[in-house]
Amino acid sequence: MTASAPISGAALSDGDHASLASAIRALSMDAVEQAKSGHPGMPMGMADAAVVLFSQFLRFDPRHPDWADRDRFVLSAGHGSMLLYSLLHLTGYGDMPLEELKKFRQLGSKTAGHPEYGAAAGIETTTGPLGQGFANAVGMAVAERHLNARFGDDLIDHRVWVIAGDGCLMEGVSHEAASLAGHLGLGRMNVLWDDNKISIDGPTDLTLSDDVPARFVSYGWHVVSCDGHDPKALAAAMAEAAADPRPSLIACRTTIGFGAPTKAGKSSSHGSPLGAEEIAGTRAAINWPHGPFEIPDAVTELGLSLGDRGADAYDSWTAHLAKSGKKDDFERALSGALPKELAEAINAHKKSLSAEQPKLATRVSSQKALEVIAQVVPELLGGSADLSGSNNTKVGSQEILDKSNYGGRYLHYGVREHAMAAAMNGMALHGGVIPYGGTFLVFTDYCRPSIRLAALMGIRCIFVMTHDSIGLGEDGPTHQPVEHLAALRAIPNLAVFRPADAVETAEAWQLALQRVSGPSVLALTRQNVPTVRSEHSEANLSAKGGYVLAEAEGARKATLIATGSEIEIAMAAKAQLDAEGVPTAVVSMPSLELFAAQGPSYTKEVLGSGVRVVVEAGVRQCWDRLLGENGVFIGMSGFGESGPYQELYAHFRITAGDVAGAVKARI
Amino acid sequence: MTASAPISGAALSDGDHASLASAIRALSMDAVEQAKSGHPGMPMGMADAAVVLFSQFLRFDPRHPDWADRDRFVLSAGHGSMLLYSLLHLTGYGDMPLEELKKFRQLGSKTAGHPEYGAAAGIETTTGPLGQGFANAVGMAVAERHLNARFGDDLIDHRVWVIAGDGCLMEGVSHEAASLAGHLGLGRMNVLWDDNKISIDGPTDLTLSDDVPARFVSYGWHVVSCDGHDPKALAAAMAEAAADPRPSLIACRTTIGFGAPTKAGKSSSHGSPLGAEEIAGTRAAINWPHGPFEIPDAVTELGLSLGDRGADAYDSWTAHLAKSGKKDDFERALSGALPKELAEAINAHKKSLSAEQPKLATRVSSQKALEVIAQVVPELLGGSADLSGSNNTKVGSQEILDKSNYGGRYLHYGVREHAMAAAMNGMALHGGVIPYGGTFLVFTDYCRPSIRLAALMGIRCIFVMTHDSIGLGEDGPTHQPVEHLAALRAIPNLAVFRPADAVETAEAWQLALQRVSGPSVLALTRQNVPTVRSEHSEANLSAKGGYVLAEAEGARKATLIATGSEIEIAMAAKAQLDAEGVPTAVVSMPSLELFAAQGPSYTKEVLGSGVRVVVEAGVRQCWDRLLGENGVFIGMSGFGESGPYQELYAHFRITAGDVAGAVKARI
Repeated sequence: MTASAPISGAALSDGDHASLASAIRALSMDAVEQAKSGHPGMPMGMADAAVVLFSQFLRFDPRHPDWADRDRFVLSAGHGSMLLYSLLHLTGYGDMPLEELKKFRQLGSKTAGHPEYGAAAGIETTTGPLGQGFANAVGMAVAERHLNARFGDDLIDHRVWVIAGDGCLMEGVSHEAASLAGHLGLGRMNVLWDDNKISIDGPTDLTLSDDVPARFVSYGWHVVSCDGHDPKALAAAMAEAAADPRPSLIACRTTIGFGAPTKAGKSSSHGSPLGAEEIAGTRAAINWPHGPFEIPDAVTELGLSLGDRGADAYDSWTAHLAKSGKKDDFERALSGALPKELAEAINAHKKSLSAEQPKLATRVSSQKALEVIAQVVPELLGGSADLSGSNNTKVGSQEILDKSNYGGRYLHYGVREHAMAAAMNGMALHGGVIPYGGTFLVFTDYCRPSIRLAALMGIRCIFVMTHDSIGLGEDGPTHQPVEHLAALRAIPNLAVFRPADAVETAEAWQLALQRVSGPSVLALTRQNVPTVRSEHSEANLSAKGGYVLAEAEGARKATLIATGSEIEIAMAAKAQLDAEGVPTAVVSMPSLELFAAQGPSYTKEVLGSGVRVVVEAGVRQCWDRLLGENGVFIGMSGFGESGPYQELYAHFRITAGDVAGAVKARI
Repeated sequence: MTASAPISGAALSDGDHASLASAIRALSMDAVEQAKSGHPGMPMGMADAAVVLFSQFLRFDPRHPDWADRDRFVLSAGHGSMLLYSLLHLTGYGDMPLEELKKFRQLGSKTAGHPEYGAAAGIETTTGPLGQGFANAVGMAVAERHLNARFGDDLIDHRVWVIAGDGCLMEGVSHEAASLAGHLGLGRMNVLWDDNKISIDGPTDLTLSDDVPARFVSYGWHVVSCDGHDPKALAAAMAEAAADPRPSLIACRTTIGFGAPTKAGKSSSHGSPLGAEEIAGTRAAINWPHGPFEIPDAVTELGLSLGDRGADAYDSWTAHLAKSGKKDDFERALSGALPKELAEAINAHKKSLSAEQPKLATRVSSQKALEVIAQVVPELLGGSADLSGSNNTKVGSQEILDKSNYGGRYLHYGVREHAMAAAMNGMALHGGVIPYGGTFLVFTDYCRPSIRLAALMGIRCIFVMTHDSIGLGEDGPTHQPVEHLAALRAIPNLAVFRPADAVETAEAWQLALQRVSGPSVLALTRQNVPTVRSEHSEANLSAKGGYVLAEAEGARKATLIATGSEIEIAMAAKAQLDAEGVPTAVVSMPSLELFAAQGPSYTKEVLGSGVRVVVEAGVRQCWDRLLGENGVFIGMSGFGESGPYQELYAHFRITAGDVAGAVKARI
């Protein structure tokens, strides 16, 4: 058997199919009714497709939801969460007893309004913001092919099935992702499009005239259409999709709110409870005489039998793994644990940097760190949104990952920042790879919805964001991030690193790799900066977020707090102030988040009690807490300008002289 | 003559065409060389297409760059800015003498690295972030048709011409925008695609396998291809595009860096100076023996003659306007001035609200304000990204704007938040309409690149962002904005309003409409809130950003500062504290930006000297400056949860009891 083949593909009898589909419809409308909020229309419309998928195609085992070689099922249309919760319950996921369905949308339940990754096994990604799940799936399918190339057909050989709605397909991120999937020939990605012709504002023809199938064909996809309520047609379409080497769009022509006597086919069934009368009518129409949340034993048994389909395949796969000779390597890779050799490699790299003291842009230092890391961490899968040379994201040892070489470890994402970030999320969720990807820091705005979801899910993605201030110079205000550091620091559970030199850049990489519970942003300079960490430290000094880089010469009267390229300015100001009899310390603060997590005794010691000046070529917003009422901020208060960067720093008064002047005015 | 017909369409002789194209190529490569940075490849590749456009098609008059009925020329591939600057110089725009070209990318010049709206006449929009100009053009084309419907063919009847590169067409925002343009049948939009098959990382086939023409056909576009270096073929393609009722993609097959002996056709010509040797070789290849920035008199005359083409049409149009009987109305609409009646209408509305004291969600109050405003301001052009009913953005009097009725004043944007925001920018840039558009506040992340550009350009767009906190309840953390208020407040020149009740909502609308120099965000609740402004005030109290809503009963010991829905909580806490002998004031702070612009005596008076507590159901970041070192923040420190909103407020300890407790712990 080919591992990726559908497992035990016998079709259900018409009666059994109808029972399961009706159970899903009933659970969905009942849970929404009980919660007094939610989206019944989509689960009712897609119940038939879901039953066919789970009964004949999906490779899964509810007893082993973390099975590395399971198919991934992504509910991109996350508002239809009751479809997923119903399926997990019916097929026997231990996390999803009936009680959880009854607590739909209640505080503390596993059944949030939109599926939340981590809340329950079987939820493969957090969805709700439209288009994201679709684009996550691209990353999952990349990870699948990549690990297949690394570990072989016996260990990784599965599919990614997606349910996407009209909204998902309208979002730009799905267009980018579909184009990328077509280019990469990701035949393992199969998208069930809930083609119900209804959006919230009304029929989709209010807003959409796309020939969607033709659009997907233009990306290089395979497209097949079917009646989304005919099990045989659905099965034939899914089989055709699974057999095609291209990514597939399966257009399932459905009726939203299927079964609802007056609301079916209308946007009124989309996002509100149906109401008692409509529910009673639906029960009659779908032949489901049972009470709310009542599932007859026969249907329970039937559902569990779907869940049993994967048991043999799981056992067979486990046996393959045991005898593969790759078990330790595979399990380490999939666990996300870093190779033991990494710490020593980074330490040696730091040591040589402190000795050589190069003057490099931190984007270049990042590349040098990557040269070290990529040798040691085979899971690293890099890329850039068409700025490889500018982001310095590619290292010599990395082959290109494309459809002729899925084993490559570098992906040219094209000018698709948003899809890149969302695909990285999918890779991290799949496991077995550690994704990083680059663009300019200003274009974190394009990636932001996906960065937020990485933070919300608590997954390890590393965003390599270069050209991190007015220091990029002539490209001007459209390309100069000013508010971006603040805006990123505002996202909970996102670590933002702005290292000052080559040593701190290596430390930031190490911390980002170690940070398994959330994403990191590395903000890196275009312009050269000197090595300020000229004394080697085995310890990762950046781990506390901020530390005294240079103590005052004498009893400290002033503390200059800076990040990244502004450390050079702070050090020059310190030299001037020390010389003028104002003993001044410089605190490097590569990560405000990590610093905020330290105890008050440490932060007090670092910050001192004298005049406090923060220097960062961004907006002030995130620094007020450290500045207190008397601190001085030297940075930006508006957008940048186009010009040579040295002139810009002078123009915006972010110079050593300005810093020293500010200190002297306060003492 | 049809006003929209190409004006004086005679083709240039081959020699004249070549001279102008060579002049553009030379100016572009020389300016980049002198600046030691920039992008010569695109202007050199698209020079032929640009000369054909400016000599035979574009309706423009350099002496009247603000002519309302000019064609708009959008350089979406903004990195090729020297193409635009060269054209503006050669055709005689007064803002663009040769000296400006010599100062390319220098501080204080009009010739920034990427075109900056406002820096010089003829720059119709700020571009650089890819895909944005393309999507702006959709909004310009909507505004054109809408004003045509309002004022007739004699006054508004022009086209929008776009130059877009491969990067623009890869960005999701352009996909959304193209889909929207196809749906709306915007035949006035013609896109010259610089089909040079090169991106920064290398040949586009590294990352792209789209059949681009087929993709655009799937959106309902007309597509025509041509040799981008053959003037006759280009002219034929443009004529065909202009004649077609659909939006057109003109695929111009070009060679990037055309003329450069070793770098033409390669990514090495894209983003760096060519170097002296390559430039010398190019001069020979394109038969341009003149020195850097040297334009022979004959070529200067030729260029100016292109600029003269529009003079008669301008005069004719001016005469039409004078005799149209619509001159005052037209000029007021195009100037962006608000009708005088607006102030009185809003005042009357506020008065009735203060009397009636409704308990309404501020999104509903926003709709009520819009009912008033839409009656008085015919320029208002609203819409929503498929959330019309949730955003409460549509009022009864608004007809739908679609291809059968461009005179409609409400646009269903579909699930295309990013294109909506970018199109709104285009509408504001076109003039004659005041765009507003809605989605959920959490999805400002999807719009953010365009919101930033609106702020950078200083244009009036009003973003109506509802469901502004955990107060939206059961939809859960994916939909609950937590960091978004902070992240938006970090953007320079963006005004963020979070009104507390129906009266403040009306005031926020008034301020947003009056704010002609930048965009505004209205953050509005899903849940009901009471009217707290029960005493009518003619003055717009929100205009100062923050004010004392309720003074303490006795000498003030504490000040509660809150926004939006948290005002109700603050008022309840105040009542409790006053009763317990802690005289407490409540400050409503609908706009931090406006408050920050007040003088210190006002802010001190408002904030008082006692215990200070801020209550906002978002992150703390933007409040530290007001909190000082001893203030207390009651809000969110991480992501939200799914559940009924009252339970969430209790769970996250954002209640009157928590606020009162915090005050009592400090006094």
